[in-house]
Amino acid sequence: MNSTSAASGHIDSALAQALLSPRSVALFGASDDPAKTAGRPLKFLRAAGYRGTIYPINPNRDTVQGETAYPSLASLPQVPDHVFVLTPTETVLDVVRESARLGVKVVTILASGFAESGPEGAAREAELHALSRQTGIRVLGPSSLGVIHPRAGVVLTANAAFAEPELPRGRVFVASHSGSMIGSLVSRGKARGVGFAGLVSVGGEADLCIGEICSATLDDPSIDGYLLFLESLRHGDKLRAFAIEAARRGKPVIAYKLGRSPAAAEMAATHTGALAGEDDIADAFLKDLGIARVGVLEALLEAFPLARRIPLAQPGTPSHSEPHSEPRSTPHSPPRPQPRRVGVVTTTGGGAAMVVDQLGIRDVVVEPASPATLDKLAAAGIAVSPGRVLDLTLAGTNYKVMKTALDIMFEAPEFDIVLAVVGSSARFQPQLAVKPIIDSADSAKPLAAMLVPDAPEALAALTAAGVPCFRSPEPCADAIAAVLARRAPGIQPAAQPKRNRPPRALSEAQAYAVLERLGVPYAPAITLPIDGPVPALPFGYPVVVKVCSPEIPHKTEVGGVVLGIQDARQLETALAALQTNVAERAPTVRCDEVLVQPMTKGLTEVLVGYRIDPDAGPIVMLAAGGIWAEVARDRSIRLAPVTVEVARDMVAEVKALKTVSGLRGKARGDLEALARAVCALSQLAVRPELGIAEAEVNPMMVLPEGQGVLAVDALVLTS
Amino acid sequence: MNSTSAASGHIDSALAQALLSPRSVALFGASDDPAKTAGRPLKFLRAAGYRGTIYPINPNRDTVQGETAYPSLASLPQVPDHVFVLTPTETVLDVVRESARLGVKVVTILASGFAESGPEGAAREAELHALSRQTGIRVLGPSSLGVIHPRAGVVLTANAAFAEPELPRGRVFVASHSGSMIGSLVSRGKARGVGFAGLVSVGGEADLCIGEICSATLDDPSIDGYLLFLESLRHGDKLRAFAIEAARRGKPVIAYKLGRSPAAAEMAATHTGALAGEDDIADAFLKDLGIARVGVLEALLEAFPLARRIPLAQPGTPSHSEPHSEPRSTPHSPPRPQPRRVGVVTTTGGGAAMVVDQLGIRDVVVEPASPATLDKLAAAGIAVSPGRVLDLTLAGTNYKVMKTALDIMFEAPEFDIVLAVVGSSARFQPQLAVKPIIDSADSAKPLAAMLVPDAPEALAALTAAGVPCFRSPEPCADAIAAVLARRAPGIQPAAQPKRNRPPRALSEAQAYAVLERLGVPYAPAITLPIDGPVPALPFGYPVVVKVCSPEIPHKTEVGGVVLGIQDARQLETALAALQTNVAERAPTVRCDEVLVQPMTKGLTEVLVGYRIDPDAGPIVMLAAGGIWAEVARDRSIRLAPVTVEVARDMVAEVKALKTVSGLRGKARGDLEALARAVCALSQLAVRPELGIAEAEVNPMMVLPEGQGVLAVDALVLTS
Repeated sequence: MNSTSAASGHIDSALAQALLSPRSVALFGASDDPAKTAGRPLKFLRAAGYRGTIYPINPNRDTVQGETAYPSLASLPQVPDHVFVLTPTETVLDVVRESARLGVKVVTILASGFAESGPEGAAREAELHALSRQTGIRVLGPSSLGVIHPRAGVVLTANAAFAEPELPRGRVFVASHSGSMIGSLVSRGKARGVGFAGLVSVGGEADLCIGEICSATLDDPSIDGYLLFLESLRHGDKLRAFAIEAARRGKPVIAYKLGRSPAAAEMAATHTGALAGEDDIADAFLKDLGIARVGVLEALLEAFPLARRIPLAQPGTPSHSEPHSEPRSTPHSPPRPQPRRVGVVTTTGGGAAMVVDQLGIRDVVVEPASPATLDKLAAAGIAVSPGRVLDLTLAGTNYKVMKTALDIMFEAPEFDIVLAVVGSSARFQPQLAVKPIIDSADSAKPLAAMLVPDAPEALAALTAAGVPCFRSPEPCADAIAAVLARRAPGIQPAAQPKRNRPPRALSEAQAYAVLERLGVPYAPAITLPIDGPVPALPFGYPVVVKVCSPEIPHKTEVGGVVLGIQDARQLETALAALQTNVAERAPTVRCDEVLVQPMTKGLTEVLVGYRIDPDAGPIVMLAAGGIWAEVARDRSIRLAPVTVEVARDMVAEVKALKTVSGLRGKARGDLEALARAVCALSQLAVRPELGIAEAEVNPMMVLPEGQGVLAVDALVLTS
Repeated sequence: MNSTSAASGHIDSALAQALLSPRSVALFGASDDPAKTAGRPLKFLRAAGYRGTIYPINPNRDTVQGETAYPSLASLPQVPDHVFVLTPTETVLDVVRESARLGVKVVTILASGFAESGPEGAAREAELHALSRQTGIRVLGPSSLGVIHPRAGVVLTANAAFAEPELPRGRVFVASHSGSMIGSLVSRGKARGVGFAGLVSVGGEADLCIGEICSATLDDPSIDGYLLFLESLRHGDKLRAFAIEAARRGKPVIAYKLGRSPAAAEMAATHTGALAGEDDIADAFLKDLGIARVGVLEALLEAFPLARRIPLAQPGTPSHSEPHSEPRSTPHSPPRPQPRRVGVVTTTGGGAAMVVDQLGIRDVVVEPASPATLDKLAAAGIAVSPGRVLDLTLAGTNYKVMKTALDIMFEAPEFDIVLAVVGSSARFQPQLAVKPIIDSADSAKPLAAMLVPDAPEALAALTAAGVPCFRSPEPCADAIAAVLARRAPGIQPAAQPKRNRPPRALSEAQAYAVLERLGVPYAPAITLPIDGPVPALPFGYPVVVKVCSPEIPHKTEVGGVVLGIQDARQLETALAALQTNVAERAPTVRCDEVLVQPMTKGLTEVLVGYRIDPDAGPIVMLAAGGIWAEVARDRSIRLAPVTVEVARDMVAEVKALKTVSGLRGKARGDLEALARAVCALSQLAVRPELGIAEAEVNPMMVLPEGQGVLAVDALVLTS
């Protein structure tokens, strides 16, 4: 094996085997009643024809569902690969301990009542975690409904949904925080013709997490991709390792993540210090690691075939077009690669308009046909109505028209992806417009189909042919947008030193020294003793003077800033005022120095921040300045470090910066310098030797084009 | 009849009869081949058992599909109620003319090639329109695929989708701009257990439009509500009349309207003068007239039962909660009515979280249970996990637990609407959690259900029982949000005088006179002759001086504004400069006067605008000032006039105004005065005697709380 990551080492193969293809399973606490939760795994395993050995354990009975029951783990004739603990919370730790002692490889815990339920539960979870770490036994759960691996006959689950007579089999693997969702995905997949290579309910992730489990399956040739149902971003390091390796192998990952609503996002506080768990960070994390994050549940099931056909965008490549931004023409901006352009052909104007509209909401622009393409269509005798989509209504719906139109679109350089929207004929006459799509399944260009009527047979035929296909405009547009928004994992951050102490603030002067090393421009500044005297300054008045102490991170709160000082006399007066203010408002704090800067006025102000998010790892943020960041949540986030190309994308994403993009003849700010500054600050992610946990430049002044940007305040925390 | 609107006069009954329940139909150009477009109506009418008389007209054949064919309209034994013209574009006008001559009541036109296709088509459409106006014949189309009225056996359509063996019947009526969508809605409705009382493809609306057609059916007791598929907002006056009458009768209207995407919206220009056709105007129009506008196609089919259960919000009542806005406590703001609060009960935490998240995205907040409700549940032996939803997972899924929980929620005062989210059991064991929902169908409080797995039988049972139910989280949340966002139609505008000439601009001084009459505050201002002399001013310096002429609506473009004038001498200099500028940059324009105002600085600036939109009628808009309105599209629109309560809602909707709402200790602006000013300007809609077509105050300065607002520039156009 020449694997490049820990994701596919020998331990993981063993894990995959014991977790997903155990040769023997003990059902601890198996019930005789197959309708009861604790009775279901035995019933389901037998119904699935599991060929390994099953040991029901139930000290109160000789038999369970007609099979020999064992009184304890120790009484089994062999050590099982996998123990599924079906007994109540209080019993769990003992069972895990005994399992570890016997050498069981994996134990799955059904019970809840751990970290999510108060201090007692948290203590229980800590002990579980310690047990796993000390003994090497791997734990799935708590609150896991189990694992399903149809190829191995493993339906090791207490989820009632797996009473499903025939589990739909396929080549995607599902990992879900929610146990009930694996059941719902199975029934929804079945209705949709989508099957699964396996499903895991990971529950509380006390030990095994989604990233590690999926990584363990990466070598499995029967798995082509992954669907993740995420309640939140947890164990980001493992998820990152998995995503990078999955991207390298070309196995697409699609994720549905809860927590998109502004209400949820707003609940977290409003400045970078408290961004943890905010949805836009998770969003950046997923996209930057090549994971397609869908926003519509149905798209979770439908996006995979499309994701297989479309390569990941390279970082810094706009993954979809930016129709509203001004063209960039500064000498610093090389011409940007073309965005991914979707061409739409349809037999129903109204139906196609729905999809175009939904794509537009998601900033995916539908490309009109070029004159050359229209000429080719005309030469082939195909009349199309004018407009953004190729509407074949006038030409009439038949095989030849649709097939010819598709073939012309596959050759047209203006389209990167072709979407066929089929109207009423799809329901009863699939030979007219659906068949030509199926016959184009191997086209050189990615092709997808959306059916406007309810047309289950056509949908099934398209799905069976491997054509990405959709039955509603919203999941269609959502899947396309999510797949296009993926970025190939870029430069990864360096390993961060473990934090042994709480982060410590630097003074503003020390913070500028850090910016200096990174190459982030900042306003000239000198420090003076707070008790004077005032020397000649190396820059002209007016100036601002600020208290300068690592113990005063929020200077204005102690009256520590005086603006607009016109001369040396005013500066002297200001120093005296600062001394008084600090003595009164922060009497316990030591402050020997002040920092003096020329007054700087930019065209606009922004916030540029870097920090190590506990879940997502190092991130860099660019946000509108001041109150706007809070009011309009106008910001762009990426995993750090970023290239200057990616930083340019971030600049383009902050709406407030459009006010200095030359719109309506207003002055242009130096947005190229801003992109360079964002890139520079983000390099903290690969400079662990600087020992910086967090750095926030606020405000960063954006000067007119050609004059750069200047940090005029900065708060830096060491790790 | 004591009808209060033109919507139900005798003409409309006649229209409904001839359009939807004709006693006789002529199929002009009927084809012998039932598979051809022109052959379908005959086939479909016969298949549907139409009991009226059908006259196939085809001069080239003796029989058509085995029936006697007639050579012409004149040769028919009677004048048919309704003629469906199936022949090509060029023949249409002759057929309509002949129909009118004979006294046919309604003619439906299949052909396209009218207003949408260039000057020749436009001329054709104008003639069609004139024909209808002159003769009284009513025209459906062009580009209409026909009408379907199952109760009358009328399947008078060329849409191939109506080969559907059994059309699903129901009590909602569909009107669609798109002809293909009526077919898709039928198949989708059938799959979803939703049927229709009738469907009309209105096509190009050369004469009959959606509003008029729907109005004509309002007296039909077999129709309980309406679904509209809108490509754009057209014939707003008729749609308004229909919506008001439908609201009065308690017949819900649900609409899906294309054109939500920012790309589409951005294509229209950026200032009020060119707002026509923008989506947010249409959105305000629909909501203000009580129409539930859904954003997800599936919700168009699913929202109706919910809309029936939930009354329209009164204007000025927030239709859903505003969790992020500051509490209003000024003496002018009476306590606001509570928003509509949704309570969620579930058997699946993950599934419910999806719906809560989707509701949150749409600003509908899920209300947690009160301690009293939790006590009642505990007393009933039902354990629930802590959190925003009532999660019954711990209690176990069974009939009694769900039924008891529902009954307690129906009595809990904190919930206005109850949503039950059912997990895996819905698929195979509907008796556990679905049955109790069905048994609660007649609850005093609106109840809805969302099924997380694919559970077609449970869905069908719920649908049949009349319980609003959903199979995906997005349409569920979308339908709830759309239904809650409806507002009962408020004060309606006065009839506007017909514009006989292009609108004419007033000078700024004249514009202030209009504001004076409306009670909109404006900055003090005097006019002076542009050639001086400068008198003593009734207010202090500094002042601004501006050219004042109805011929110079955009003053800055001619260098017609001088700011920051400190004294009389500077004012004299400024007057001279203005004379020079106007002479140089607008030599053909007459400008005798200037307007002098004290310099006014507010906490922030906004734009307040009124105009008569060609589609939506009179509207009022409040927008963030300056470049922000364009960059962030930060504005709120309502149909005019508005009450001060509604104006307060508008203030709350403009994000930029949060910067002056007292957030983070910043100064509060006089937002109550702003609401009064918006209300005052909007009164133009009921003051046609003022003869104003458009009035834009830009900027309106928002002063600190208690100090009011001041218009410091205004552009008013007379009609």
